[in-house]
Amino acid sequence: MTESVPGPVQPTADAVAALRPLPLTATTVADDSLWGTWLRRNAARTLPHCVSQLHAAGAIDNLRRVTGEVDGEFQNMWFADSDVHKTLEAAAWQLALTPEDVELRAFLDTTAALLAKAQDVDGYLNSYYTVAKPEQRWQELHKSHELYCAGHLIQAAVAADRAGVGAEVVTVARRFADLIVDRFTEVDDVDGHPEIETALVELYRVTGHRPYLDLAKRFVDLRGHGLLNPEHFGAVYLQDHVPVRQADAVAGHAVRQLYLLAGVVDVAVETHDDELLAAARRLWDDAFGAKTYVTGAHGSRHRDEAFGDPYELPADRAYAETCAAIASFQWNWRMLLATGDVRHADEMERVLHNAIAGSTASDGQHFFYSNPLHLRTGHDGSHEDAPSQRLPWYTCACCPPNLARLMASLPGYAVTADDSGLQVQLYTAGEIETTVDGEPVRIAVRTEYPWDGRVELTVTTDAPLTLGLRIPGWCAAEDVRLDGEPVEPVDGYLRLRRDWKPGVAMTLDLPMPARVVRPHPRIDAVRGCVALTRGPLVYCVEQADLPDGVILEDVRVDPSAPVVVNRATGLPDVPVALTVTGTVQATDAPLYPAAPVEETTESLAFTAVPYFLWGNRKPGPMRVWIPAAATE
Amino acid sequence: MTESVPGPVQPTADAVAALRPLPLTATTVADDSLWGTWLRRNAARTLPHCVSQLHAAGAIDNLRRVTGEVDGEFQNMWFADSDVHKTLEAAAWQLALTPEDVELRAFLDTTAALLAKAQDVDGYLNSYYTVAKPEQRWQELHKSHELYCAGHLIQAAVAADRAGVGAEVVTVARRFADLIVDRFTEVDDVDGHPEIETALVELYRVTGHRPYLDLAKRFVDLRGHGLLNPEHFGAVYLQDHVPVRQADAVAGHAVRQLYLLAGVVDVAVETHDDELLAAARRLWDDAFGAKTYVTGAHGSRHRDEAFGDPYELPADRAYAETCAAIASFQWNWRMLLATGDVRHADEMERVLHNAIAGSTASDGQHFFYSNPLHLRTGHDGSHEDAPSQRLPWYTCACCPPNLARLMASLPGYAVTADDSGLQVQLYTAGEIETTVDGEPVRIAVRTEYPWDGRVELTVTTDAPLTLGLRIPGWCAAEDVRLDGEPVEPVDGYLRLRRDWKPGVAMTLDLPMPARVVRPHPRIDAVRGCVALTRGPLVYCVEQADLPDGVILEDVRVDPSAPVVVNRATGLPDVPVALTVTGTVQATDAPLYPAAPVEETTESLAFTAVPYFLWGNRKPGPMRVWIPAAATE
Repeated sequence: MTESVPGPVQPTADAVAALRPLPLTATTVADDSLWGTWLRRNAARTLPHCVSQLHAAGAIDNLRRVTGEVDGEFQNMWFADSDVHKTLEAAAWQLALTPEDVELRAFLDTTAALLAKAQDVDGYLNSYYTVAKPEQRWQELHKSHELYCAGHLIQAAVAADRAGVGAEVVTVARRFADLIVDRFTEVDDVDGHPEIETALVELYRVTGHRPYLDLAKRFVDLRGHGLLNPEHFGAVYLQDHVPVRQADAVAGHAVRQLYLLAGVVDVAVETHDDELLAAARRLWDDAFGAKTYVTGAHGSRHRDEAFGDPYELPADRAYAETCAAIASFQWNWRMLLATGDVRHADEMERVLHNAIAGSTASDGQHFFYSNPLHLRTGHDGSHEDAPSQRLPWYTCACCPPNLARLMASLPGYAVTADDSGLQVQLYTAGEIETTVDGEPVRIAVRTEYPWDGRVELTVTTDAPLTLGLRIPGWCAAEDVRLDGEPVEPVDGYLRLRRDWKPGVAMTLDLPMPARVVRPHPRIDAVRGCVALTRGPLVYCVEQADLPDGVILEDVRVDPSAPVVVNRATGLPDVPVALTVTGTVQATDAPLYPAAPVEETTESLAFTAVPYFLWGNRKPGPMRVWIPAAATE
Repeated sequence: MTESVPGPVQPTADAVAALRPLPLTATTVADDSLWGTWLRRNAARTLPHCVSQLHAAGAIDNLRRVTGEVDGEFQNMWFADSDVHKTLEAAAWQLALTPEDVELRAFLDTTAALLAKAQDVDGYLNSYYTVAKPEQRWQELHKSHELYCAGHLIQAAVAADRAGVGAEVVTVARRFADLIVDRFTEVDDVDGHPEIETALVELYRVTGHRPYLDLAKRFVDLRGHGLLNPEHFGAVYLQDHVPVRQADAVAGHAVRQLYLLAGVVDVAVETHDDELLAAARRLWDDAFGAKTYVTGAHGSRHRDEAFGDPYELPADRAYAETCAAIASFQWNWRMLLATGDVRHADEMERVLHNAIAGSTASDGQHFFYSNPLHLRTGHDGSHEDAPSQRLPWYTCACCPPNLARLMASLPGYAVTADDSGLQVQLYTAGEIETTVDGEPVRIAVRTEYPWDGRVELTVTTDAPLTLGLRIPGWCAAEDVRLDGEPVEPVDGYLRLRRDWKPGVAMTLDLPMPARVVRPHPRIDAVRGCVALTRGPLVYCVEQADLPDGVILEDVRVDPSAPVVVNRATGLPDVPVALTVTGTVQATDAPLYPAAPVEETTESLAFTAVPYFLWGNRKPGPMRVWIPAAATE
């Protein structure tokens, strides 16, 4: 049992853990930083919007149907309880950051009370099965999402406990968890949607109650033995086609796969299960070696919201679900803590600043469920999972509250600790305050990251600590400077052991030129194209920035010409744009000409903007991967 | 009312029709031609297999449940009656070709009697709604497929009538059609799956009963006004998002869109509706200008089995449903008859010899539902709609009986007539026997087409006829020779008016070099790739023909090197292969390198085989579009 401190994922002292998290309250993010705008927007706009939509969509009323306060039929998706639980988790983390938020506190208390009232005497809590299908309780786990919803309830309780903001939801979640332990410890059953695994391990970490961990391990090991009815979607979709320990490829529904892998790592580190951790590493290699978008997103197929075959990474039909991006962030966080491997921090940074950040509109109240890398000219946008612009809510509303809970816990991912000291993993302006060996440590960080790679740190402590500074994977290590001098990072970190006492100031320079990124030759979908990046940010071209009459698909980039970093963009909310040299190439060739295509070519200098900001000015075509002119 | 002659689509004498069909019995296909092998295989293998599977899958028993002969719950898909009807249609056409087929005749008679017995007193006939949901008759047309099934029943009846092989099924179909006229003439309702439209026009052609035509027109005009409940799939999928007359883009479920367009042309030509025909032309331009695969297939998305955005044509995730290919063939046949535009014959040839032909295994008893142009290394093949090899049957079994009915009517599409004479549209070895102005005409065709472009024709007649010979779109007209002399085709046809009396022999040479085809630059999915074709055939590379250890995705073609036509292939059932000069290029680059990728290159001469024959030797990766080596 660990001393509860606010923040997601707190391995026990006995766990396999190269690194330890700091409480999310240890990092105070500067208001005027990019993260600061995200945090404030999440608190002021997204979280209240989620609460409001839970009411509007009937998710709260479903629980009130259980208590008898509301009449009528169950509304919305059968797993809509999970939207309530995720919003509750978000509220808990947010209250750790801003305990004075009275309205949010009221939501948390009211909702916790409602959950307590809606809970069955035996601990069961699921409004859909209680209201609409009581006789089917636990009987259709391949599609019921009962343990999935329970998992999100438990995660909300863990957050409430660690944030110290609500004992009632903890009581409710434990009662339900105890029922689940009773029900599933002797029966070979798993849920069609993983989530319960990581939740049970986290509840074990909060409570020290070993049966939770044992059941999580049991659920992991029961998968892949065909226990689930494969009707409709099949065993791969349900993550039931191969035991995790034998799997060598991520497959099926991306969110299911990635949530499962988060639980796999949690189980592995708490049970010292090297085989399981090795499976997670193997699957990580597969996912990030051949099935990840340049934005960090996962899921190549709309069909089944699924991973594709190796190198099947279409830009236009990228499913790239927001929840899968969040799940990848969560999985990589667990992998980072377990292994200390810098690549996990790199992936967290990439997916956060591109796929995740891009899913929310500047107003904080419109969202993408799917995050394509190319919206074509002529896209009809008639489908909810492939709209032409962000929507305020979704029939399947998993993503918005998931964003809210991630953003509310964001400061918890910036810095880690180990026995030697601290590691700055994700850069943001702000202040870090913690203790090392009982000695207070304070690190002030001044930076315009991710718009500029200069990071000024001032460290004040009496602790003999080694400060690790992550050198991002996108950065050429030979160009990095510390106080103007070249550095020699080891395993992706610059490790500084100094005499900190007086408050030592230093300046880390991570050069951020515009970079022209290529796809691996096996990625057919973007062959002959380049992507433009700068620092951790992927850029894109929007129709909004092209001259009238230019079709986006006719734009080419000259990859041999310099890309200019433009800090006076004149575009609202776009601090840094790129100015690109290219052409517009048009043809009247037939669809499949039998000779090399002749094109008219006109030169064009065009603007690229950060991908995460696309679609905020006006809806329209967009693409990340831009065909290279034949000049290369 | 037209004199019934066997063959699909018989416009009335009053219809807008640039061309007229010949009866399918007018063309006798040579047994040893490619078409001959298809026809014999269809009769000997596919049709009996379909009959057997109708029993095995429970489709026949469903009808017997209606008659009380069988107990138990309805089996299979709710529209499984249509599989019976399509097989019945296939049997009718086949009996026109081979009337001595006793077993097939027995199937037709038995099934017609069963249908008659299963028909309700009021004429209604649908086993699912009668057995499982009697109270829902006509109440859930967005998903019921009742009129879709009725349409296939009517098409079977039309075939039986024209083939002169069964009056009973005609009686059944007319009774049902009369009920449908009664039910729908005053009510604003349409079916979620088009098919009834073309069927009713064809029934009008057979019977001369005008209400059938009027209702078909009514169904066409009622679409696009939001009459259908869009639950689950949406209005675009259901072809209910825009009136046909206003539509400018093919969209949604490809089979629904293409079946609808077949009916649209039928209605337009019989009612002299220029606006409707113009809409069909406009949608044809959209479909074939930006949404057609090089194999002639349609449907870019597994999600919704749907058309994609313009130029969204992924090779690996091509849905390219077999039924959509058949529907395109049927639509183009109607467009060809209406307009005489040679491009429709070109598209019929392309889709027949590639997408359609490739959907059936050499054994005639395994089928693809989806026909991708790239099966990746590492493809998991776990989904029924994206298997790694052809399957004997499908849960949704629409495609195999659809293939059977098309193949059984194939000779009907070879030749057309107009007032000036005859037009050879699709080349096959065989004999054409018909009359022109009452005079017998006999044309003997000797050719190895599509393996060779030499076509020897001997014409015997006293009729003063103009013989049109189609010069295929894949063929460079300047290279065509007739008896060794250059020709001057007009609008895609070489039109010969000669004194035929003595029996005139001539030799048409359509040169068939291997061709290197490029994609339009807006087709991102295959940028930098080429496809190899020869004559009407698209070729592909199979893993089966690569040296051990070579990954298909690492193979490159040198588009500047000659492609050798190889007639001594040594491969079973592959008369002509291509030998291609290329390379194997491998790299250990990361997924998204920030510098041009360095590859090791080894030269490789490899074999390409006709796409329609892929997957017949052993399962494995395959691709049509091959990346071009950078040497180009």
